[in-house]
Amino acid sequence: MFETNRETLDRALSAIADRGYWSAYPESPSPRVYGEGSAERGKEAFESYLGKAFPTDQASSGDLVGAERSPFGIELGVAYPRPDTGALIAAAKAALPAWRDAGPDTRALVSVEILRRINERSFEIANAVQHTSGQAFVMAFQAGGPHAQDRALEAIAYGYAAMTSTSPSARWEKPAKGDPLVMEKKFTVVPRGVALVIGCNTFPTWNSYPGLFASLVTGNPVIVKPHPRAILPLAISVAIAREVLAEAGFDPALVQLAVEEGTGLATELATHPDVRIVDFTGSTTYGDWLEANARQALVHTEKAGLNTVVIDSTGSYKGMLGNLAFSLSLYSGQMCTAPQNILIPAGGIDTDEGHKSFDEVAAGIAGAVSRLLGDDARAVELTGALANPDVLARVEGAPALGEVVLESRSVKHPAFPEATVRTPVIVKVDPSRADVYTSEHFGPISFVIPVESTEAALGLLHDTVAANGALTASVYSTSDEVLDAAEKAAMEAGVNLSCNLTGGVFVNQSAAFSDFHGSGANPAATASLTDPGYVAGRFHVVQSRRHA
Amino acid sequence: MFETNRETLDRALSAIADRGYWSAYPESPSPRVYGEGSAERGKEAFESYLGKAFPTDQASSGDLVGAERSPFGIELGVAYPRPDTGALIAAAKAALPAWRDAGPDTRALVSVEILRRINERSFEIANAVQHTSGQAFVMAFQAGGPHAQDRALEAIAYGYAAMTSTSPSARWEKPAKGDPLVMEKKFTVVPRGVALVIGCNTFPTWNSYPGLFASLVTGNPVIVKPHPRAILPLAISVAIAREVLAEAGFDPALVQLAVEEGTGLATELATHPDVRIVDFTGSTTYGDWLEANARQALVHTEKAGLNTVVIDSTGSYKGMLGNLAFSLSLYSGQMCTAPQNILIPAGGIDTDEGHKSFDEVAAGIAGAVSRLLGDDARAVELTGALANPDVLARVEGAPALGEVVLESRSVKHPAFPEATVRTPVIVKVDPSRADVYTSEHFGPISFVIPVESTEAALGLLHDTVAANGALTASVYSTSDEVLDAAEKAAMEAGVNLSCNLTGGVFVNQSAAFSDFHGSGANPAATASLTDPGYVAGRFHVVQSRRHA
Repeated sequence: MFETNRETLDRALSAIADRGYWSAYPESPSPRVYGEGSAERGKEAFESYLGKAFPTDQASSGDLVGAERSPFGIELGVAYPRPDTGALIAAAKAALPAWRDAGPDTRALVSVEILRRINERSFEIANAVQHTSGQAFVMAFQAGGPHAQDRALEAIAYGYAAMTSTSPSARWEKPAKGDPLVMEKKFTVVPRGVALVIGCNTFPTWNSYPGLFASLVTGNPVIVKPHPRAILPLAISVAIAREVLAEAGFDPALVQLAVEEGTGLATELATHPDVRIVDFTGSTTYGDWLEANARQALVHTEKAGLNTVVIDSTGSYKGMLGNLAFSLSLYSGQMCTAPQNILIPAGGIDTDEGHKSFDEVAAGIAGAVSRLLGDDARAVELTGALANPDVLARVEGAPALGEVVLESRSVKHPAFPEATVRTPVIVKVDPSRADVYTSEHFGPISFVIPVESTEAALGLLHDTVAANGALTASVYSTSDEVLDAAEKAAMEAGVNLSCNLTGGVFVNQSAAFSDFHGSGANPAATASLTDPGYVAGRFHVVQSRRHA
Repeated sequence: MFETNRETLDRALSAIADRGYWSAYPESPSPRVYGEGSAERGKEAFESYLGKAFPTDQASSGDLVGAERSPFGIELGVAYPRPDTGALIAAAKAALPAWRDAGPDTRALVSVEILRRINERSFEIANAVQHTSGQAFVMAFQAGGPHAQDRALEAIAYGYAAMTSTSPSARWEKPAKGDPLVMEKKFTVVPRGVALVIGCNTFPTWNSYPGLFASLVTGNPVIVKPHPRAILPLAISVAIAREVLAEAGFDPALVQLAVEEGTGLATELATHPDVRIVDFTGSTTYGDWLEANARQALVHTEKAGLNTVVIDSTGSYKGMLGNLAFSLSLYSGQMCTAPQNILIPAGGIDTDEGHKSFDEVAAGIAGAVSRLLGDDARAVELTGALANPDVLARVEGAPALGEVVLESRSVKHPAFPEATVRTPVIVKVDPSRADVYTSEHFGPISFVIPVESTEAALGLLHDTVAANGALTASVYSTSDEVLDAAEKAAMEAGVNLSCNLTGGVFVNQSAAFSDFHGSGANPAATASLTDPGYVAGRFHVVQSRRHA
């Protein structure tokens, strides 16, 4: 069953080693690619969920919860079963043995089939991502659909590679006095136990799929606890997984939805003695708490960071400004990879358009953002809406943090009048104000910081990232020496670096099967999406031997 | 440099995948194999250390510590530099960058060269292991020499395989409007940081080498803190490592010795903010403490366990008794893999010599031990000496735990009159006495436990191992059904199982490159020696990308 997915798995396995470009899922939200009528069907499917109980075969008391509201202003009104922690864990444990016994190949092929079906429903999921995260549609489609699916497939490939790096059996011969000693040995992959995935508001699928599929392929039943504001995309994904698992003859309880309603469900599940793996994306505070308190579990977290840009010089001033403006504007800075701290020598920089003072560069970035977002109708397709009131509060509080270089602007969404849309605010902050720039200000808030020199900038990049973490770093320079020094600073701080992005690649974007997301080498994350460290520990190998 | 070790590394890499028999180092302590005069030279080298300051190039205040006494009754009187924690860590950190920048290949080849030199000095190290652990010479040679070296090489191979599973560079092309997007990407392996290895009394090299070499090959400087009773074997190993590192042009501070004198040095080092990896073998109490308190570090522990034997039936009664007797007697039960709890149906078992009652089987094991150890001169070559007074106290206290089936006997060592040698004590304990048999009684102490049935035995195996951990499990049965049930119970408890060992393979022995030691799937250990989970997390990959 599902043997047709073997080819996909094989391509993924070769891609994770090469790390050249490769994608299983086309990222174009075009009905030409996804099939005639797919866009309309996806939208209809999304709308069919609104104002109703979400259809599920999960056991339930009949009691319902859920209060999602679209950042674009629509009340979703989808109701989900109120979870019973004990029942969820009991069901997960009961489902485990048959899934474990099925072995790595079957688990991988079934997991790939789940992804294939998820991919078919990319338009439906994109609508759900848009109206929970606040992403504009095209981004919700790409990041919430094919890019998330690629990251999931990558996690499956890493898990499969790790499980199959040991032969499932061996014949062992050792010369001895008389006949050699001969033994038959069997090596069985055993899962760690029940896994928990704690989703986030802004990237409900992209940030949850890797943990979900890494745990599932390695034999662990998974309980998916979405962010209370972004349930629907994961509810749909879980339903698809359950459908495929049941078709393949497995207990659908291998993947279960657990909807939080602000009652401490994440904490209750994460510290349950039978929960052995926790994957979390979200705040540093709660991530650190999980690492310290979910001690019975292997905990993987992706937390906040200080994404930093160092500007030394550039051979394409316009290209640099445009690229930075796009990175700051995309999804109004609500990406864990969006730049926050922009370090510029106080004496200015050399460019292909001559020397530019600090203030000119700061004004240049501000101007590029303003131009990019000048037209409301086009702006909202880039910025999307603010995901939640906390982000709005931060945007509104940002001017108090320093000298405003670019004011945030409220934009009227032409299609969704009640959407909360804000353009980026840029604030000039003195290097002495570490109290400001060594915290993450999640949202469309960035700081331009006049530093003494490029060397000082690289020192600050190193020290702040090593201490507080970051998911991305970026440098602009025409000097090979500076680029080398930046690479060294980034490597020593443990952050992935992009150099001289002036075209169609942006620091906030990482390509599955090529770029690592996070590194595990700084406080922002415990491992990369995806590296061997992300999958190791989700399973063990247990051996049995007997004489041949 | 050291390119001649490439072949050794390549063979190791292929061996870890296949897990058939393969060994880099001959385990025969024969001068024919190791070279004419090697045995004598090794003994002389060992003796040259006694009663003196250990020769070292490590920076030191001149102040000396160390009070090792051979379990065979010789005062060693070797003195080592008193460590200065701050200086050790500063030196380790200073040594890191060049070692990191050397890359995986150089690190692997230098590490293999260290092993090659250690191998050449196997006789010298064997004497040191004998007179610190109390192992008889042949075992000290095999387990402390080639077997330890094989485990080390295995760890190097796993570390190298993990580091090189990602291409060091990639060219990424993505179709775009107009020209494709093309980027050059670089992926650099960065070590986690300063590593600490905490050695144990009984297997100073075998249990320390894997962590030492896994950390070293992945780029981390290593501080080796031996058990205060077993310093010399690691002092020699560290000196060899430093010599090779210096010859290869690296800072010898990549491997440093830190001698404890009961001052809490392990705790001080393990909780130091700059110590990022801790490998520990020893008590459950301290291992659990490390896991809970060395929170800044990746902690790998190997702790105590309840190694369990289930006897259902046998087609070779004599073979079984002999095999068990050997496993109980070898190094007088002071192996973390030696059986402790022997579960036998109260109604007896079927054998090729007819039905045997519980008491007959218990007496049979006792008789086999007595016969095996009947001759003092031959006995001591199997049992060695008791490693420390704690073991002796447990042996002397064992009769109070139940009904004695076999008394421990004090044996006069013909060559070392002051050696403390004790044969195994076997105690019959009722299944109701979980208070007795769910603790580890480290040393030549085992329990025969009359259980209701084989099914009850397998249930008890599962439950006690899942709760308290174990490094080994063993079953005897002529029934395929029972063997399958035992495999299932062992797999679900997460312990490696041996079936029907009646010949020259013993449950306490695991062959590097084939058998896993520990599993990570039960409380006795966090990972296997060696699996991908043991090396992942010791390094990360940091990326840099720029347009081509």
